Amino acid sequence: MTEKTFRVEGMSCGHCEMSVQEELEELDGVKSAKADHVEGTVVVAYEEGRVTGEQFRAAVEEAGYELVF
Amino acid sequence: MTEKTFRVEGMSCGHCEMSVQEELEELDGVKSAKADHVEGTVVVAYEEGRVTGEQFRAAVEEAGYELVF
Repeated sequence: MTEKTFRVEGMSCGHCEMSVQEELEELDGVKSAKADHVEGTVVVAYEEGRVTGEQFRAAVEEAGYELVF
Repeated sequence: MTEKTFRVEGMSCGHCEMSVQEELEELDGVKSAKADHVEGTVVVAYEEGRVTGEQFRAAVEEAGYELVF
């Protein structure tokens, strides 16, 4: 299991955190996601090789926010 | 139908608006609620006599925010 922290722009509250987490956790290979709107981050635990950075980016965008690499 | 604008403290995004609207619209006598996190307001359309200010306050609090009279 790999754990990585990404920057997410645009989250302003706990609802935003939930939206980001839910979209990321729907991805195959993602075990968990914990977002923090104050820090503007999401920590994702995932299986290397089963999910790509592009999928992370698309999931965060689906939630309505922007993942910044 | 009566329409009144209340101040709501603590909303920071569209998710917050949705939470407030949903709780208010669950009240008997409330026809619609439209929240605005930028203005910090919610406009409620309701039938006078079927719902009280205390019920509005409780619904907004249930959503996690504060209605200021």
